[in-house]
Amino acid sequence: MPVKPSDRAPRRDTYTPESLLAVAVEVFNRRGYDGTSMEHLSKAAGISKSSIYHHVKGKEELLRRAISRALDGLFAILDEPEARRGRAIERLEHVVRRTAEVLMAELPYVTLLLRVRGNTRTERWAMERRREFDHRVAELLRAAAAEGDLRADLDARLATRLLFGMINSIVEWYRPLPDDSSDRGPVADAVVRIAFEGLRDHGGPTRP
Amino acid sequence: MPVKPSDRAPRRDTYTPESLLAVAVEVFNRRGYDGTSMEHLSKAAGISKSSIYHHVKGKEELLRRAISRALDGLFAILDEPEARRGRAIERLEHVVRRTAEVLMAELPYVTLLLRVRGNTRTERWAMERRREFDHRVAELLRAAAAEGDLRADLDARLATRLLFGMINSIVEWYRPLPDDSSDRGPVADAVVRIAFEGLRDHGGPTRP
Repeated sequence: MPVKPSDRAPRRDTYTPESLLAVAVEVFNRRGYDGTSMEHLSKAAGISKSSIYHHVKGKEELLRRAISRALDGLFAILDEPEARRGRAIERLEHVVRRTAEVLMAELPYVTLLLRVRGNTRTERWAMERRREFDHRVAELLRAAAAEGDLRADLDARLATRLLFGMINSIVEWYRPLPDDSSDRGPVADAVVRIAFEGLRDHGGPTRP
Repeated sequence: MPVKPSDRAPRRDTYTPESLLAVAVEVFNRRGYDGTSMEHLSKAAGISKSSIYHHVKGKEELLRRAISRALDGLFAILDEPEARRGRAIERLEHVVRRTAEVLMAELPYVTLLLRVRGNTRTERWAMERRREFDHRVAELLRAAAAEGDLRADLDARLATRLLFGMINSIVEWYRPLPDDSSDRGPVADAVVRIAFEGLRDHGGPTRP
């Protein structure tokens, strides 16, 4: 069983900005960012507050770093070759699959991103960047519609919301296997199948 | 602009169990059930705590009544004729459409249901009943698969989770029009189209 951060013995010399960030994100997700104090972070990490201040200016910097990790992972998808060439529907499918994969690979970081509500400057920035990502995906939907590959009876904005509703809901129940990441593929496959082909099997020539 | 409950002048004589419930649900959703005291409810309703105790035993009874309203609406769907006869895929489609519609019609009550986390007996009961509803829908998916109408490459449990992920995400952004309910239909239509047919337009004979 993995050792929970709160069970760790104080080991101040071994902390890196990365491992401190992992502990902070776990606490933010459990207590909420507003409900987390430097005292909570200090206890969870098993190091003194002054040791934390050695690494970061305060909890908002930890939030910014954690959110950046999630956003960097998501925006990098849009620069992948498969997201940049070919028909819009294929680019969209790639982005949907990779978004689900990045969500699972960076689960605590993306969970935090999806939960921020905008009380601080960093949170408002996070929400703005998240909206920007959603807009980029909505543009892909519009492009796919313009190319005749998307059902014409769907509103792009509404479809984007429902699509992200399905993808983002994965954070509510997905928990990585302790050994490896072998279960991400089937989940991403299911998202892509439902989103692009739907549940219904028509049995026709378009569904071999 | 509609009057917010907190702006209402005290009108203790006009309160009914129904209107008190509406105020309580608004406060529960805003502050969280755990974060809501009888004092908060008293202020929001503009009536004294003892007046509230005239109607209910305490906040847990208000939670139970609110959750019951959401659950009664959802479970009633399963008893509708269209959910009880015909091929499983058609029954499933009816249940998905109606679930989206009930979610929007009973928005604050279903929002509360989706947010409870199990700290009290009432919350654990709510989660148990919610799981029961999910299981009933998963059974419909399995029945549709057995009848050959559901894509064979989808796991029923995973598909059910993603389906509810999409439907339940509506609470995050849907806000009823102040005048009527005329915008629920297009949202429910989009859910059904994406869930059953997918985003992609194959242009084949199965997609007229």
